[in-house]
Amino acid sequence: MQTPAGQPADSLSIAIVAFDDYTDIDLILIWDLLNRVHLPGWNVRLLGERQFHRSMTGLSVPVHGHVSEASQADAVLFSSGKGTRAKIQEPDYLAQFALDPRRQLLGSICSGALLLAALGLLQGKRATTFPSAKATLEGYGVEVVPQPLVIEGNVATAGGCLAGQYLAGWVIRRLVGEHVAAAVLTSCQPVGEGLSFDTEVEAIPVVNS
Amino acid sequence: MQTPAGQPADSLSIAIVAFDDYTDIDLILIWDLLNRVHLPGWNVRLLGERQFHRSMTGLSVPVHGHVSEASQADAVLFSSGKGTRAKIQEPDYLAQFALDPRRQLLGSICSGALLLAALGLLQGKRATTFPSAKATLEGYGVEVVPQPLVIEGNVATAGGCLAGQYLAGWVIRRLVGEHVAAAVLTSCQPVGEGLSFDTEVEAIPVVNS
Repeated sequence: MQTPAGQPADSLSIAIVAFDDYTDIDLILIWDLLNRVHLPGWNVRLLGERQFHRSMTGLSVPVHGHVSEASQADAVLFSSGKGTRAKIQEPDYLAQFALDPRRQLLGSICSGALLLAALGLLQGKRATTFPSAKATLEGYGVEVVPQPLVIEGNVATAGGCLAGQYLAGWVIRRLVGEHVAAAVLTSCQPVGEGLSFDTEVEAIPVVNS
Repeated sequence: MQTPAGQPADSLSIAIVAFDDYTDIDLILIWDLLNRVHLPGWNVRLLGERQFHRSMTGLSVPVHGHVSEASQADAVLFSSGKGTRAKIQEPDYLAQFALDPRRQLLGSICSGALLLAALGLLQGKRATTFPSAKATLEGYGVEVVPQPLVIEGNVATAGGCLAGQYLAGWVIRRLVGEHVAAAVLTSCQPVGEGLSFDTEVEAIPVVNS
């Protein structure tokens, strides 16, 4: 394992930022895949502002820490959903983040890019998002390009719910390595489309799907 | 909308069966996509045995009804995860289901196929599952084939987490029609891989991802 700056690391913390009115798949796909890395010191947490946050369909996720803790994480990923449109309008919310792409991997799925932009982290960069968030994202001076994953140094944006797999793969590749990233991504593919009955799932970080 | 037998319907109930130690993605991908159908009378519920069930990673979902209510649903889908291995060993659990493929669509994602098999619903049929569940499924006399979705009349099995999209698509296609199924599936694809910035997401059943 290594830090975003390329230094060897004994532990790595990955924060996924949640809020009310998040999109279920977008948050859970990233959460599930990042939790398939079973290495000592690998730590994935959901950050928010309350004990639980509620999705657009009425499900909820537990919050493991406050959003202000994101500044200490090695990687910070913003989830998506209708809730992003409210959060980008709240200066007090945004002021709680002190993120730095020189020492952190920063990323988003779908409209999570609006939060990265509102925090000034996409200034002069290319990015991707969900179609319904494109115009708002462009309003921040971001060049929005039609790709599933756009990587700009230590900042990556993913567009389209199932592109969450590419975002999770990028984080794992950067912090752990290509071998584990490939194994995790393989483990979630449809049978016959990347996963086969010959895949030794016992040998990769997920066993019992 | 129409029933599994092809009769016009004013309302349709879709049940997703949950239990402890479920796999997050497998359950939530199906749940999220089925909830993108915004039609009056379309009703998606999670069935289980307690107020909440806990996933393999420690998240949880609320339970909207008891598993014994599955016999009244128009479609019943079994989720997956380590929990299936426990449930197939519990005769009292299995005895609560009275499913009938003549009047219901029945389906599974990954190791959820073990529950369909334990209920005698895959007898003499072809099916697919997660690689680590293949041998156990074959032990029920099922022909396991390396495909992402296997449809046998009103019974469908999906293999590999992201094949949940095909299972959800099958249910929507059968009960609502191809147009809505295609719109829902398009709405979750990665940008540039099925979803484009020209896709009119406002016109399909999801708006704010």
